[in-house]
Amino acid sequence: MGQKPITFIRQVVAICTYPNLLCDHTVPEDARQRAERILNNCGGKSIGAYTASQGIECIRQDVAKYIETRDGGIPSDPNNIFLSTGASDAIVTTLKLLVSGEGSSRTGVMIPIPQYPLYSAAIAELNAVQVNYYLDEDNCWALNIEELRRALSEARSHCHPKVLCTINPGNPTGQVQSRQVIEDVIRFAAEESLFLMADEVYQDNVYAEGCEFHSFKKVLFEMGPQYSNTVELASYHSVSKGYMGECGYRGGYMELINLDPDVRVQLIKLLSVRLCPPVSGQAVLGVITNPPQPGEPSYEKFIKEKKHVLNCLAERARLTEQVFSGIPGIHCNPVQGAMYSFPRIEIPPKAIEAAQTVGQTPDMFFCMKLLEETGICVVPGSGFGQREGTYHFRMTILPKTEKLKILLNRLKSFYQTFTEQYS
Amino acid sequence: MGQKPITFIRQVVAICTYPNLLCDHTVPEDARQRAERILNNCGGKSIGAYTASQGIECIRQDVAKYIETRDGGIPSDPNNIFLSTGASDAIVTTLKLLVSGEGSSRTGVMIPIPQYPLYSAAIAELNAVQVNYYLDEDNCWALNIEELRRALSEARSHCHPKVLCTINPGNPTGQVQSRQVIEDVIRFAAEESLFLMADEVYQDNVYAEGCEFHSFKKVLFEMGPQYSNTVELASYHSVSKGYMGECGYRGGYMELINLDPDVRVQLIKLLSVRLCPPVSGQAVLGVITNPPQPGEPSYEKFIKEKKHVLNCLAERARLTEQVFSGIPGIHCNPVQGAMYSFPRIEIPPKAIEAAQTVGQTPDMFFCMKLLEETGICVVPGSGFGQREGTYHFRMTILPKTEKLKILLNRLKSFYQTFTEQYS
Repeated sequence: MGQKPITFIRQVVAICTYPNLLCDHTVPEDARQRAERILNNCGGKSIGAYTASQGIECIRQDVAKYIETRDGGIPSDPNNIFLSTGASDAIVTTLKLLVSGEGSSRTGVMIPIPQYPLYSAAIAELNAVQVNYYLDEDNCWALNIEELRRALSEARSHCHPKVLCTINPGNPTGQVQSRQVIEDVIRFAAEESLFLMADEVYQDNVYAEGCEFHSFKKVLFEMGPQYSNTVELASYHSVSKGYMGECGYRGGYMELINLDPDVRVQLIKLLSVRLCPPVSGQAVLGVITNPPQPGEPSYEKFIKEKKHVLNCLAERARLTEQVFSGIPGIHCNPVQGAMYSFPRIEIPPKAIEAAQTVGQTPDMFFCMKLLEETGICVVPGSGFGQREGTYHFRMTILPKTEKLKILLNRLKSFYQTFTEQYS
Repeated sequence: MGQKPITFIRQVVAICTYPNLLCDHTVPEDARQRAERILNNCGGKSIGAYTASQGIECIRQDVAKYIETRDGGIPSDPNNIFLSTGASDAIVTTLKLLVSGEGSSRTGVMIPIPQYPLYSAAIAELNAVQVNYYLDEDNCWALNIEELRRALSEARSHCHPKVLCTINPGNPTGQVQSRQVIEDVIRFAAEESLFLMADEVYQDNVYAEGCEFHSFKKVLFEMGPQYSNTVELASYHSVSKGYMGECGYRGGYMELINLDPDVRVQLIKLLSVRLCPPVSGQAVLGVITNPPQPGEPSYEKFIKEKKHVLNCLAERARLTEQVFSGIPGIHCNPVQGAMYSFPRIEIPPKAIEAAQTVGQTPDMFFCMKLLEETGICVVPGSGFGQREGTYHFRMTILPKTEKLKILLNRLKSFYQTFTEQYS
């Protein structure tokens, strides 16, 4: 999408790859220091060696410090940090640990609808039961506790709900959860003995004024020992999102709170089967959690590049919302965070009929027509789940602003033609 | 273990990581060309972007060409190549596709004993049935077709055997299968309608005179269309072994032959859940399958480094066998290939009793004592499986020759003291 990699990240990883560059004085000193520290913590000082299954220790320490800083000093234990092959790997691994049973004792996993399809795919693969709770579109996709209660109570008739997943900021819905909602969710999980999985991979991607990212970990500990000593929580982060966007490196981590020590032993065993996460991805994570500090040679450039990416994304989030709000028949909540808009679209009855004749869902029909006629590729809402009778699509805000303007206007014209054609 | 990375591999991956190095003329031109080609095949010319789930197309083409060259011109189709996160990921993914059923219809997976524990772990995780066939220790760990027949026939009473796994060169057993055995195994798989999984990650690690690596793919095609059009075969390779030893990059591939097109669709779906294999690992694989050619600036250095690693390993394989053969009570087959010796050791009855009192298997008891008293870490045979009443351990041949000599002699003295102590 044209987003340039952060120079400092790539410098450190390049040196780790080819340590001859440690002597290259065109590379800044702080990059060389970071690389040397990582290499000193690798077997044979090489990122080609296997690491511990849990990840390189000094990087887990960096992650823990990073979490402490993020959460205003609430302690984080490197032993609770597990590095992973992107967040997906960690999420699937957690589900593997939690899922069991057959028939009506099968594990129920509560997921938001709309959801990121990794969840539905992993739940299906593990033969668990998907328990949908609907986000409140009329309230900017907020999580509603009454809806959680409804979903849980209905699910208890046919499965054993044990896990509650939440995505904050939301994918594909882009909402940022308020501190109050997070507190309510934690209280609900505590009352109902649910394992909380908090997908927080978009924690750096918050754009809307008045919105702020609150980690589940922080809120949990602020609620006091009654909660922080009992609620089981997994939180996920990734190098693929934020300002770094280093998806190809497949780096990430999870922090596990209040995990039963016996379960931890099984987790380590499970992780050791796949040996270790890619070490270059671990190195990227190491840079992100131990970035240049004021006074270091790379600090200003790093901050400038980081701010540039995040400012551009914020601009595009506003632009997207603005254009969509101006199109009759389209309703789009503010893109408070993450990287997507998820507008609701009205689809005329004749288009719904036309979709049926070709065996497509109406939103898929719309998206295919859009692709065929404009070359714009968006993902139909049915891929994420949506309330019956409503139609959406997910569109990324990643294209450069000038390009995004063109895309949005082309989409606008197309939608107008489409609705006229099928009216 | 002190094995130095191959310079050319790291140069190419460093340039892919930090493309400013494309202008660095201290890096050889062929490395820059390889990196540029890989980058041109990445989204936004960045290895930070997701790739296709199946892997970067130009690297799949390189892999296919590499296989063709290896197999004397037998064609390989890039569409049959799937890049993976190390070989382990590809092996587990294949098993996921093949395993189904409940009760006595559960899928049986035939694996050699001794085996690499990835297989037993994945089979357990997927709730399949492990069907053991024993390698013939008295015949240098050869695979015996009669034993395959026995194992299959016994398994049919309680499960549905569908998969036959083979590891060549063997891990932990180090044998290199003869062409004749491979042909027999393929014929057996064809007769019994078994899906063949050929773990060939040690294909570059063949040391013994008179031994040669024959790929299952090559033998299959040489047996003619009756076999090559029907037998379903998956073959695995990795960047973690061979002369490269780049385990930390988690790169690998599988080639799938005669896969049902409908199953292929499901495979792609399954792979897309985990997005893509780490791109730096894909790049390492790209270098290995498209190495410097005669006349290119890096050719001589590359060949020299490659030969050095393989010659050292061959020397250590011989040294290991030689020292172990001189120890009464230890029997060690020749290390024909791979990276391990797997000697059988006699354990005195009193040591077996002592092991029982501490709740350990006798080989684990031996290995723990060895570790405690000498600092040498070897893996007990019970971790890999062995015929009842026999005891083994796996020891890597990776340490530098001088160090390995010291280790082997220390192990020798320890074994003598151990047997005296418990006699």
